Amino acid sequence: MVAAFETDPRLGAFIADNLDRYVEELSALARIPSVAAHGTGIDDAVAFVRAAFERRGFTTRAVPTRGNPVVVAEGGAGARTVLLYNHYDVQPPEPLDAWTTPPFEPALRDGALYARGVIDDKGELVARLAALDALRAVHGALPLRIVAAVEGEEEIGSPNLEPFIAANVDALRCDACIWEAGTVDDHGRPNLWLGVRGMAYVELVAHTLAHDAHSGWAHVLPNAAWQLVHALATLKDTADNVLIDGFEDGVQPPSPAQERLLAAMPDEDDDYKREYGLRALAGGRSGLDARRRLFHPTCNISGIWSGYTGEGTKTVIPGEARAKLDFRLVPEQNPAQVVRALRAHLDAHGFGNVEVHFAEGQRAATADPDHPFVALTARVARAVYGTEPVVAPIVGGTGPARFFLEHLGAPFVSIGCSYPGARKHAPDENLRLDDFVRGATCIAQVLAAFA
Amino acid sequence: MVAAFETDPRLGAFIADNLDRYVEELSALARIPSVAAHGTGIDDAVAFVRAAFERRGFTTRAVPTRGNPVVVAEGGAGARTVLLYNHYDVQPPEPLDAWTTPPFEPALRDGALYARGVIDDKGELVARLAALDALRAVHGALPLRIVAAVEGEEEIGSPNLEPFIAANVDALRCDACIWEAGTVDDHGRPNLWLGVRGMAYVELVAHTLAHDAHSGWAHVLPNAAWQLVHALATLKDTADNVLIDGFEDGVQPPSPAQERLLAAMPDEDDDYKREYGLRALAGGRSGLDARRRLFHPTCNISGIWSGYTGEGTKTVIPGEARAKLDFRLVPEQNPAQVVRALRAHLDAHGFGNVEVHFAEGQRAATADPDHPFVALTARVARAVYGTEPVVAPIVGGTGPARFFLEHLGAPFVSIGCSYPGARKHAPDENLRLDDFVRGATCIAQVLAAFA
Repeated sequence: MVAAFETDPRLGAFIADNLDRYVEELSALARIPSVAAHGTGIDDAVAFVRAAFERRGFTTRAVPTRGNPVVVAEGGAGARTVLLYNHYDVQPPEPLDAWTTPPFEPALRDGALYARGVIDDKGELVARLAALDALRAVHGALPLRIVAAVEGEEEIGSPNLEPFIAANVDALRCDACIWEAGTVDDHGRPNLWLGVRGMAYVELVAHTLAHDAHSGWAHVLPNAAWQLVHALATLKDTADNVLIDGFEDGVQPPSPAQERLLAAMPDEDDDYKREYGLRALAGGRSGLDARRRLFHPTCNISGIWSGYTGEGTKTVIPGEARAKLDFRLVPEQNPAQVVRALRAHLDAHGFGNVEVHFAEGQRAATADPDHPFVALTARVARAVYGTEPVVAPIVGGTGPARFFLEHLGAPFVSIGCSYPGARKHAPDENLRLDDFVRGATCIAQVLAAFA
Repeated sequence: MVAAFETDPRLGAFIADNLDRYVEELSALARIPSVAAHGTGIDDAVAFVRAAFERRGFTTRAVPTRGNPVVVAEGGAGARTVLLYNHYDVQPPEPLDAWTTPPFEPALRDGALYARGVIDDKGELVARLAALDALRAVHGALPLRIVAAVEGEEEIGSPNLEPFIAANVDALRCDACIWEAGTVDDHGRPNLWLGVRGMAYVELVAHTLAHDAHSGWAHVLPNAAWQLVHALATLKDTADNVLIDGFEDGVQPPSPAQERLLAAMPDEDDDYKREYGLRALAGGRSGLDARRRLFHPTCNISGIWSGYTGEGTKTVIPGEARAKLDFRLVPEQNPAQVVRALRAHLDAHGFGNVEVHFAEGQRAATADPDHPFVALTARVARAVYGTEPVVAPIVGGTGPARFFLEHLGAPFVSIGCSYPGARKHAPDENLRLDDFVRGATCIAQVLAAFA
């Protein structure tokens, strides 16, 4: 049963009526190439985010960290406080030639806006701004206190977020947190997330020769690409099982509440198959079995390169080969243990000279499925989207939710504007404008209902 | 016993005295970026080579092929004809940032000239021009007939050379052939080659996803980099044995004459170890065992790439992964059979959807170790270099020697200007000027002796 105030139609109407100016605001933000991995556009993005909140009557600060600053914005008043967590940094845009239009030149096509960051996470941030505008327009003022924390290093693993949170617990204290993003699935069902996986990101480096050599000597000179290929092949089998000794030590199955949510989630196998042109999922998994894999860690090659990668033919023995590996972790794991297990595995398999460089790490986090804010959000989402929401106990992606959970103790729920074709982290990242309106409306309704 | 005319000191003196202008001539040629794989600089290189021979009284033609033209130059007169085979194209210069100075801006450092192609094969070509100049200067005219065939596609496997030779057998008829290159080893011993290996060059392509995906879905979406790594790992073991079924079918051991040459060759293991910073050779081989591997084919990864290869971290499941493989073949193999065996192997190991794109192929060739031209060249080299030459029945590299052998029937011997640190096909390719003088002198003496 949804109370009338929870689905005030004026909130959604305001956002739809003002869509053009939100597209404009988002486009301006998406033109800033704030790639944390490249260190570009950070100052411009900080200034933009502060100005956007200040135009809306918020007080803002750019809180310095050892890396990029966190923008903190505070506004509104009421019995309850909701924390909005977002980030102004984006993934690198490469490979550039796979984009239909340039990644930092937002382009509207068929009702969707294309650019790096339009969904992850700049579009989500602007959706929250739209929700705040709608609440002020309809209620005259914000009916609750809002604290926004917009960081600039999410895409490189939020290395400086925990000290920021620990040092600003009073300012960030809240009754609930709306997470950085949310999505609808291929069937228009809103997906609410109660957890995120962790991350260990490493670069492997094989060195076999002081310099590259003519491949006529391949019978006597060891090839770094071969060494890396052989080392990688010991990490995972062709059935997608990770073979690193000790990698899953201590990993727990889902709790009964989490298992109930997994079982209630719809089967999305066909959606994945259609979107990615697949005949079968990784490891031949399907249905609930595939969903249960959310509670297992992954071992993914994000990149590999060695030798000659240009046009035509070149015959060379590469002296160096590199791979970027990301491990998505579950709540019981910590990145340092995973890296130690990887090092020990390589040593034990004769690859002691393959270097492991740790790049970033983060622990997983899951909110309590039985918290009342979860039920409220699900009720509102059902009303806004006119369909049963999918509530996931954890999702595949990573975010610094654990820091908030540990220091603030507040439950977090994801609501947002993405869809399976949004191409997050990939070329042609895009935001459907209809999703933007519904996502922003849902956030506004949740805030109104929670107030 | 070397006859006096075979080591006429005036030949070497002429070349040493005129070294500056050969460095200038080579630098001008090396500034032309005639990369066959990229299709650049071809016309300029053809014009340069023709002009260089014409300045020396040769008649020249640019013989069209389906690809880049072959420059044919004819000059001199005498009872005997020697064919000079060289090429004006060079390997791609990548990776550009590994060069100390730009690859197409020749730079002199510590008695060596650095640029792409200064040794392979432009420096060798200019050394032959210098040898011809010396003969004319000392003898008044060339004491034998010279035919030079300078092609422009050697570095992409000479795909159009055989039809050219077949159509020009009369013009190319010769008593002996001086091959495109030669080298001294780390101990200053001239190395004479009597054979080259063949080549099969392929690109492997793994496709798993219609487009790259966020790595949070690594538990359900198959990763092309993993598929390629697993496929490659089945091709060769960590002890450097090729595992492709049927790959070595029909491969013969060296003949008794070849085995005698292998056994007489000096042990170069320590040279390789010093040059490349190795503790052990590939497969733990050493000595005669390592040299016998010249009569086995290789399977080399010349390049591999997939996913994100830039700075920092990006978390993506690559939908496509590629590798360039080159196989150095022995005389009994042909490229088509090797590619068929590779295809069948991948199919049999569950990698039927990994594509194999054939790029280029060439068969191996070995000249008769007992031919008198071989003995003459060895005698002259011993006199010029003041040390026993190393005569190799075959070398690791590839060249289109088989076409000449089959159509012209002439023996070929390598003499030239390279050394183990020349970094052929790699960044900082370089030519030591002392090697240039001795190599050019040796060629001049061989021509004089053979005339």
